[in-house]
Amino acid sequence: MFLVFEGVDGAGKSTQIERFCDSLAAAGHELMRCREPGSTALGERLRELLLNHGETPIGMRAEMLIYMAARAQLVEEVIAPALAAGKTVVSDRFLLSSVVYQGHAGGLPIDEIRAVGAVATSGVRPDLTFLLDLHPDDAVRRAGDTPDRIESRGGPFFRKVRDGFLSEAAADPDRVAVIDAAQSVEDVQQSIMNAFQRHLGTPGHPHGSTT
Amino acid sequence: MFLVFEGVDGAGKSTQIERFCDSLAAAGHELMRCREPGSTALGERLRELLLNHGETPIGMRAEMLIYMAARAQLVEEVIAPALAAGKTVVSDRFLLSSVVYQGHAGGLPIDEIRAVGAVATSGVRPDLTFLLDLHPDDAVRRAGDTPDRIESRGGPFFRKVRDGFLSEAAADPDRVAVIDAAQSVEDVQQSIMNAFQRHLGTPGHPHGSTT
Repeated sequence: MFLVFEGVDGAGKSTQIERFCDSLAAAGHELMRCREPGSTALGERLRELLLNHGETPIGMRAEMLIYMAARAQLVEEVIAPALAAGKTVVSDRFLLSSVVYQGHAGGLPIDEIRAVGAVATSGVRPDLTFLLDLHPDDAVRRAGDTPDRIESRGGPFFRKVRDGFLSEAAADPDRVAVIDAAQSVEDVQQSIMNAFQRHLGTPGHPHGSTT
Repeated sequence: MFLVFEGVDGAGKSTQIERFCDSLAAAGHELMRCREPGSTALGERLRELLLNHGETPIGMRAEMLIYMAARAQLVEEVIAPALAAGKTVVSDRFLLSSVVYQGHAGGLPIDEIRAVGAVATSGVRPDLTFLLDLHPDDAVRRAGDTPDRIESRGGPFFRKVRDGFLSEAAADPDRVAVIDAAQSVEDVQQSIMNAFQRHLGTPGHPHGSTT
């Protein structure tokens, strides 16, 4: 079973992945956790290149393709073998991040990202994605920042990212569960478990229904 | 006008590109030369990563996507602006190398490489490609090697590359000119100029017919 967490930075993905994985492990799942870009030697080198590219210009298409290269290696080296071994794979971000960040927010045509994504993933797709949704104002409050400050950091981009995630979720409700990340950590956790059981069976049954 | 040289290493691409560009410059073309992967800061970093990846495993899909990322940056940063400025662009390798090395020889589905290539290049394609074709035995003789040695280095791969290039050229004769690279340097040079004039008009007319 392949599960993915998506959402803006600051929505609480790391905390919730930790708690979710603890619950699944307690229920008997054999887990494989990963993150994008990264979780392979190549992915970490590409992450380093993307985050610290200094004076090296990287256009939107090249950026998207580098994320896809990291993703292809992650699928081949980690995700596909883990799934084949019957493990439950939990990833911090996957293809939907490319669709939203480089597509909805970055301006690349969505169908082009999907076409490249189909090749990069060899068709491996999440059984369920948890979208941790957070209103920009809440992200501001969490960061202890003033609204003006986050506007100056790219508020319009942030809103395009959120709208992109929500429209993708609305288009694929069977595979993307929207979670209100403005709730308390405990309530977010409970919402995730509820969505998981509703979509994929109970965590007590690692090989339960995956309709 | 966008011109590309393809062929196996050792076929004489560098020498012929040098001579070809000299002829074009003498005939009044304003030239932009580039090579793949490379010719941008990002491309050089990706080339370094591909050539010196040491213990970092790189799968065929990831490798293909890294070449595509370098290509996307090259098109955006160098090739498209040069073409828009009326220059003649001459590239050492382009998309056809991915089709042949990762597809025909590497085993990735050709249509997947083309789909990714269409995105990476934004649809920019060469007006004419010179394929410097060399039989594996001739490459062996040139390198001063014994046939046994090149067999042990991957003779079957080398043959798949050559067959891949030739079958792509046969499928697109208006845009790919096969040049017999076993000839003398001068005769290869003349064959290239003949093919250029036959396909695209004379070098004395930089903005000649590009049918």
